[in-house]
Amino acid sequence: MGLSRREFLTRVGQAGGYGAAFMMMQSLGLLPAPGANAEDALKPVPGKGTRVVILGGGIAGLVSAYELGKAGYRCTVLEARDRVGGRNWSIRRGTQVQFADGTQQSCNFEEGRYFNAGPARLPSIHTTMLGYCRELGVPLEVEVNTSRGTLLQCDKMNNGKPVEQRQMVNDTRGHVAELLAKSINKGALDEDLSSEDKERMLGFLREYGDLSPDYIFKGSQRSGFKVYPGAGPATPEAKDPLPMHALLSADLWQGLLAEDVIDWQATMFQPIGGMDRIPAAFEKKLGSVVRYGAEVKQIRQSPTGVTVTYRDRKSGKSETVVADYCICAMPFSVVKTIDADFSPDVKDLISESTYDSGYKVAWESRRFWEQEYNIYGGLSYLRQTVDVVWYPSAQFFSQKGIIVGGYSIENGTDFGRLPNMQAKLDASRAAIEKLHPGCSKELTNPIYVNWGEIPYNLGSWIHGYGSSYAKTYKRIILPDRRVYFAGDHTSHIIGWQEGAALSAHRTVTQIGVAMQQGGTSGA
Amino acid sequence: MGLSRREFLTRVGQAGGYGAAFMMMQSLGLLPAPGANAEDALKPVPGKGTRVVILGGGIAGLVSAYELGKAGYRCTVLEARDRVGGRNWSIRRGTQVQFADGTQQSCNFEEGRYFNAGPARLPSIHTTMLGYCRELGVPLEVEVNTSRGTLLQCDKMNNGKPVEQRQMVNDTRGHVAELLAKSINKGALDEDLSSEDKERMLGFLREYGDLSPDYIFKGSQRSGFKVYPGAGPATPEAKDPLPMHALLSADLWQGLLAEDVIDWQATMFQPIGGMDRIPAAFEKKLGSVVRYGAEVKQIRQSPTGVTVTYRDRKSGKSETVVADYCICAMPFSVVKTIDADFSPDVKDLISESTYDSGYKVAWESRRFWEQEYNIYGGLSYLRQTVDVVWYPSAQFFSQKGIIVGGYSIENGTDFGRLPNMQAKLDASRAAIEKLHPGCSKELTNPIYVNWGEIPYNLGSWIHGYGSSYAKTYKRIILPDRRVYFAGDHTSHIIGWQEGAALSAHRTVTQIGVAMQQGGTSGA
Repeated sequence: MGLSRREFLTRVGQAGGYGAAFMMMQSLGLLPAPGANAEDALKPVPGKGTRVVILGGGIAGLVSAYELGKAGYRCTVLEARDRVGGRNWSIRRGTQVQFADGTQQSCNFEEGRYFNAGPARLPSIHTTMLGYCRELGVPLEVEVNTSRGTLLQCDKMNNGKPVEQRQMVNDTRGHVAELLAKSINKGALDEDLSSEDKERMLGFLREYGDLSPDYIFKGSQRSGFKVYPGAGPATPEAKDPLPMHALLSADLWQGLLAEDVIDWQATMFQPIGGMDRIPAAFEKKLGSVVRYGAEVKQIRQSPTGVTVTYRDRKSGKSETVVADYCICAMPFSVVKTIDADFSPDVKDLISESTYDSGYKVAWESRRFWEQEYNIYGGLSYLRQTVDVVWYPSAQFFSQKGIIVGGYSIENGTDFGRLPNMQAKLDASRAAIEKLHPGCSKELTNPIYVNWGEIPYNLGSWIHGYGSSYAKTYKRIILPDRRVYFAGDHTSHIIGWQEGAALSAHRTVTQIGVAMQQGGTSGA
Repeated sequence: MGLSRREFLTRVGQAGGYGAAFMMMQSLGLLPAPGANAEDALKPVPGKGTRVVILGGGIAGLVSAYELGKAGYRCTVLEARDRVGGRNWSIRRGTQVQFADGTQQSCNFEEGRYFNAGPARLPSIHTTMLGYCRELGVPLEVEVNTSRGTLLQCDKMNNGKPVEQRQMVNDTRGHVAELLAKSINKGALDEDLSSEDKERMLGFLREYGDLSPDYIFKGSQRSGFKVYPGAGPATPEAKDPLPMHALLSADLWQGLLAEDVIDWQATMFQPIGGMDRIPAAFEKKLGSVVRYGAEVKQIRQSPTGVTVTYRDRKSGKSETVVADYCICAMPFSVVKTIDADFSPDVKDLISESTYDSGYKVAWESRRFWEQEYNIYGGLSYLRQTVDVVWYPSAQFFSQKGIIVGGYSIENGTDFGRLPNMQAKLDASRAAIEKLHPGCSKELTNPIYVNWGEIPYNLGSWIHGYGSSYAKTYKRIILPDRRVYFAGDHTSHIIGWQEGAALSAHRTVTQIGVAMQQGGTSGA
């Protein structure tokens, strides 16, 4: 995982800026009054045939083309692959996975199963993406991102045996409540709490931690049962609590707290049948607007337009598109390889950017996690090379499913340092085996995707914005003359489709403003 | 709600007993070695045509008949209604709701929607019920029981404006972490934590509460945003934290902690199309085994069998069934009204039992909670007469849905004291209005179910077991000669179908043992 919103935003620091363009848009009445998300509100100016060339058919490119098309612009999307979606990629039987280094895989899953190699969840707070699913008729189902039945494992805890999330969550809370109640009863917080609040706090802590009347945590049925409540004579008994010392030693907090990372909070969704149902729905709307196999080679601007040259991969021929404006919705990892006449400052910013190499490993298997472990969706966490296992929320209760063993980054990690693909698959298998002893032998048909090695991505998400995030962000949300930058890397929601879609909205609005001013704008 | 597993079990106290029968079964090899749930393992002895009459076609009766049927017993289920399922009741267009006091309602929902008036969720730990859904082919979908987007409201907090669950959860944790860190830094816990664990604990608390480097809780993006992260110039900003004083005053902890009540923990499921898809699936298997409209009037035992007399509600005639054994799977609230020759101690226990009157109110409405509040499933909590609002997990994103405004008990509550149904509907509407101002006018087609007034139930679940729970429980899991008692009230999982199913398993096993001994058994 490694990439929580919090980390993104810590990295992001103080963004600031672009005030001029924004305030101008506001003064032109193009934006609603300030408020939540006002700056992202889509207010396209009628296009009246204005030509826009869009580079890259990922979510940012697709949303741009779709919205501009609705507003009367004539768009062309140049997409190097023979599919749209970008990182939104669902791998199925027959899908070819080709790495830049020559590694080749062909997916052998049985019909009907898929692996979302890129984005795999839609938080309900991502209202823009949910809105497109509604508008385009993409059926969604719940993606179970938190389940109290999943596991956490560390050799330093519980003799190395995995612990159910319900126990980690509730035992941790029990100990915290006990320690705080003890402090209060010792008078340590007399300066901080009124005597009335002390009383209330103690009452609350008993509930919060499920403490005994003397404020001791003696275990909780919230953590699960040693003797399960049935219909026989035995009295149900809660599991013995894990000692706080063991919980601290295990240091599995990232896994424990994942459910409250803002973009990972329930309720979450996924398109039924694969995340790529979203680009497929856009594709249906866009039709011939998208040119496939179009590898962008050169971007040239003039005072009146933009000329983009691409190589048609089928014919091998060089082709050009001339447009009034351009939206560059490719990742900077790719943009930096293209011959573009951007202004020197923009060129520098792009070339200084760095990308993470996110990876995932997926397997097809009998659903031992459901049938033997009673786990339905959610993620388990471990402390080894592969430190997360993600269970499918698709087709619960069916015989087989796709389990993800490993989702993190390769750059700077033990996983990334493994010598070859076989070693990586072995590490994935080892993690699943650790959680589910004896079951890893049922794992078949592995697919390993390292986004750093996927042509036309060359990375999973932006990692560094050069020397100053604030400066770069402020600059790249503004156009370089007639070229506008879109993509999640030009938003505050890095690594999420929502960021890509909102960046497209910004771009669409900016182009409208520029048009009304009869030229470039936004600066 | 009011009835968490914890409350049940606090009430339940020390069960103890029935050791004799259980150990005998074990010694006969009828049970697996002790272990989790060993006592509930179903080990039917082949029935070879043994006749069993089962009173009541709720889940306990249906499971008993299904399992006994598979094992070669000849069963008859006597069901007073014209439907099976008991409290498992999904109300749809045209369903008639008739109270014992004469109140009549007819459901006017549009086609395709339903209201689960009784059980509405299947926790994944209820493996027996999930197993039946799998075995009988009942398709399930996720029941979202926890959503960080739901609301908590108290006039004493946030100027009375509802607060999102994400904020309650994370602000509470932030304050708790800050207070505990402060205590540790003051040395208040030096006797309790080694210096190494103190260090680890401080590190953990920073993560747990999302504290600043100086261990202060200054708000967290986990709680949601004041300035939402978009793709524009503004820097995202977390909501201002709610003061701990306000959180303590609001005292909404029951709502906050609901997600960790063991039977309410994710992952939870519901049958697609209504909970009654489960009894419908049993019914299909049982066919003519079930006699409908059969109102049990009398139970008589002899040394060799049981004679049950019932009134056929259609013909008005009195009929009898003679069987070798009887499973009494009706609630005690009903059993106590029947002429039965139980032994005096059993008669007393049954007559001393008391029942809660659980209620629910449901409305059909445009999904304003999804469309305007971004709430998908889960429950909101308030502090007023109706204190819970439950959002549907069925047909997300569709235009209309069934929202439950109020789920608690009537006995001893403000709601129960309201003078009439209209006042109760008004209280329900008021709760929804408090959470969603202006929206309650869209609520239509209310259905109010008070289980205390539903004939053949006369209560939602058992409340009291007479003077001694332990004594009663110990006795009622044993037969009265040839009559065996089943139902969730004869299990440790009161108010859940799982308890009913496990009680059926126990009964099926006990009858087998009795048969092998050529008579009554289990005592």
